[in-house]
Amino acid sequence: LDSREFGRIRVLFTAMEPADIAELLGEIDEQRLPILFRILPKELAAETFVEMDSDEQELLINAFSERELHDVVEELFVDDAVDIIEEMPANVVKRILRHTDSEMRNSINEILRYPKDSAGSIMTTEYVSLKKDMTVSEAFDRIRRTGVDKETIYTCYVTDTDRKLIGLVTVKELLLSPYNTVINTIMEKNIISVETLDDKEEVANMFDKYDFMSLPVVDKENRLVGIVTFDDAIDVIQEENTEDIQKMGALQPIEETYLKTPVWRHAKNRIVWLLLLMLSATITGSIIENYEAAFTALPILVAFIPMLMDTGGNCGAQSSTMIIRGLALDEITPKDIMKIMFKEIRIAVVVGLILAAVNTLRIYIMYSGQDPLFLSAVTGLSLIATVVIAKMLGGVLPILAKLCKLDPALMASPLITTIVDTCSVIIFFNIALWIMSWGI
Amino acid sequence: LDSREFGRIRVLFTAMEPADIAELLGEIDEQRLPILFRILPKELAAETFVEMDSDEQELLINAFSERELHDVVEELFVDDAVDIIEEMPANVVKRILRHTDSEMRNSINEILRYPKDSAGSIMTTEYVSLKKDMTVSEAFDRIRRTGVDKETIYTCYVTDTDRKLIGLVTVKELLLSPYNTVINTIMEKNIISVETLDDKEEVANMFDKYDFMSLPVVDKENRLVGIVTFDDAIDVIQEENTEDIQKMGALQPIEETYLKTPVWRHAKNRIVWLLLLMLSATITGSIIENYEAAFTALPILVAFIPMLMDTGGNCGAQSSTMIIRGLALDEITPKDIMKIMFKEIRIAVVVGLILAAVNTLRIYIMYSGQDPLFLSAVTGLSLIATVVIAKMLGGVLPILAKLCKLDPALMASPLITTIVDTCSVIIFFNIALWIMSWGI
Repeated sequence: LDSREFGRIRVLFTAMEPADIAELLGEIDEQRLPILFRILPKELAAETFVEMDSDEQELLINAFSERELHDVVEELFVDDAVDIIEEMPANVVKRILRHTDSEMRNSINEILRYPKDSAGSIMTTEYVSLKKDMTVSEAFDRIRRTGVDKETIYTCYVTDTDRKLIGLVTVKELLLSPYNTVINTIMEKNIISVETLDDKEEVANMFDKYDFMSLPVVDKENRLVGIVTFDDAIDVIQEENTEDIQKMGALQPIEETYLKTPVWRHAKNRIVWLLLLMLSATITGSIIENYEAAFTALPILVAFIPMLMDTGGNCGAQSSTMIIRGLALDEITPKDIMKIMFKEIRIAVVVGLILAAVNTLRIYIMYSGQDPLFLSAVTGLSLIATVVIAKMLGGVLPILAKLCKLDPALMASPLITTIVDTCSVIIFFNIALWIMSWGI
Repeated sequence: LDSREFGRIRVLFTAMEPADIAELLGEIDEQRLPILFRILPKELAAETFVEMDSDEQELLINAFSERELHDVVEELFVDDAVDIIEEMPANVVKRILRHTDSEMRNSINEILRYPKDSAGSIMTTEYVSLKKDMTVSEAFDRIRRTGVDKETIYTCYVTDTDRKLIGLVTVKELLLSPYNTVINTIMEKNIISVETLDDKEEVANMFDKYDFMSLPVVDKENRLVGIVTFDDAIDVIQEENTEDIQKMGALQPIEETYLKTPVWRHAKNRIVWLLLLMLSATITGSIIENYEAAFTALPILVAFIPMLMDTGGNCGAQSSTMIIRGLALDEITPKDIMKIMFKEIRIAVVVGLILAAVNTLRIYIMYSGQDPLFLSAVTGLSLIATVVIAKMLGGVLPILAKLCKLDPALMASPLITTIVDTCSVIIFFNIALWIMSWGI
């Protein structure tokens, strides 16, 4: 394919989306990557560059001449430039910044100043601003003049002389209004905005709730400092979902993709939770030791431990999953805690009774020779008690975590399983000893 | 607050976003809901109606006069009308359809015909279409004339006389071009489109990848039938994430929110997996029975079972979580299976060695009187073997599920834990018996 037929490749590339070109280039070997990249027309090159992985970006920057780097950097949106700079080593950052004009450099530095998870860190400073006494046709003139480099032109923000945000107007409204209309009369004055230090997850949730295309970011004095666009919100939503899912799977979150992350980093991100949970699980082990007399007298009891532990763990996982997700989507708030407890208890009783019934059936079939009444009484009662405790813990712990400003996603299956295990073993042996003490 | 000060409430409402009004109205009791809703100005009323829960919508429709219902229905976008109709009982649907004009009724029926998870089911038929020989100023005329009722006007689709999609042009390009430019010369001809029957999850992923504001939906003959907008894509992304997370937590997916779902439905959505996993876990129990001789001779062995089972389960959960998420985000494809196996083995060896080392340390501290060398050899070797098996299963099963056209999210923590439990118990007792057979 690349026997120097650059012309044909160029035509092929021009017909493709930047994200697809980036994906394709990602599979090409390191030597040929810069050659193929140079085939791209200037604007497409910059758009493709943004979509590439950071290690390929670094490789390209190192291969670029000053002129080529300048061409790419010039076309970048401020927020994309920030994303790239955050991933690059210091010497590469210096080279990039040398090719930005002073206005862009100021914007980049401003955005870099905001904390990692804040609205400020994901915003862009390239928006269209209008004044309230402009007419619609003046507004269009301004959009035509300044719009090329803006990330979105469809929502324009109206600011006063102090840069304070006083209104917004969409291009749709502008198009549907006569040319001599004054902006002030058509602009929306009740504006939903976010502050620079607001959590980016909350900002992304607002896009989900309100279906906005962009959202203005203001400082404490209500001065407009930037906007967040829906595409960045989608990225944040996916990132936050990945982070939650990883935390729920006993992993420390990894930002890179699975295949790009080296083995030692995977191991590092897994070992902390594994050690913690392994050591917690030994508590359950120690408790079992205390009941040695019971299970050496009646070894069949041991055979029920995995079933009880797993069922308890699964019940807790189900409840915590529902609550963690509900909290993440703002469908549940900590003040619902009593409602949740009441609901989980009722669910637990229904579920526990069914499980106990099926379990009794199984015991009568499999252990009909070994006192099935005793075995089903012990395991059935233990099951119901375990399910109730598991569902209560699963329902309540994520909310308590939220109240303690911890991430509810930490209170997921792995941790709850370990806690429920301990409870279920204690319950199981105590019920067994109690019923045995009746001398049946 | 509502001592009949309707005027003030109206002013308050007018300053609010529809989603917020809907949330507020959702907390109001059933009698007063229709009264408060009637205070809203006509257009805001329709927008608020869309944002409400289906049971409140039903309540309102039943309280509406024909006139009021007509006003609300008239303002609805086609895709919102479809969403509402899908949730309503047949008699309410009939009343709604009576108030739609024939064009809208046709569109509604068309969208309702598509399968539940298809692109067709989430699209809207309200888009701006242009012809290729129009000029920019003719295009603007058309947008002004027809744009009010369109869900988005910012991307306009160019169709030929057969309604075939031949190009698209954004309002940004229109604004930046001279008025006499012919659309044909500025339109983008390489268009990414989806087909009506494509999976809506794939469609949503395309928004994430390409940052589009809307995406055209075509039929098999490339005729334009509708568009999907970014706000619907965000909804699909969140829905699919919720569904995956619930499946990974051993739940059958629930579409309603946690608090709105009745107890019996929660129980129903949990019991299937619980029964299945409980019965699978009894296999582990039966296996333990086979080793009765071993653990009655050396009861302390039982104390290590929970630690081993939990650690195996957690290791499997970690791997499957990474792979399931990677598959959902298209970062991993089934052809990576060999790479994943090789990576997981290496991670497992690193992690297993560390866990075994810590475990040995713990045994020498806690069980120094009970042959710590034997105990740490048995548990250490079992740990390493369990971790390797758990990580292999966690890495491979989601991919096999995908290859079998099953949802990889089913191969998550709960199922893998159960499988790994069985393996770890077999490994543990066999290693114990083997080392015991040396007669140490």
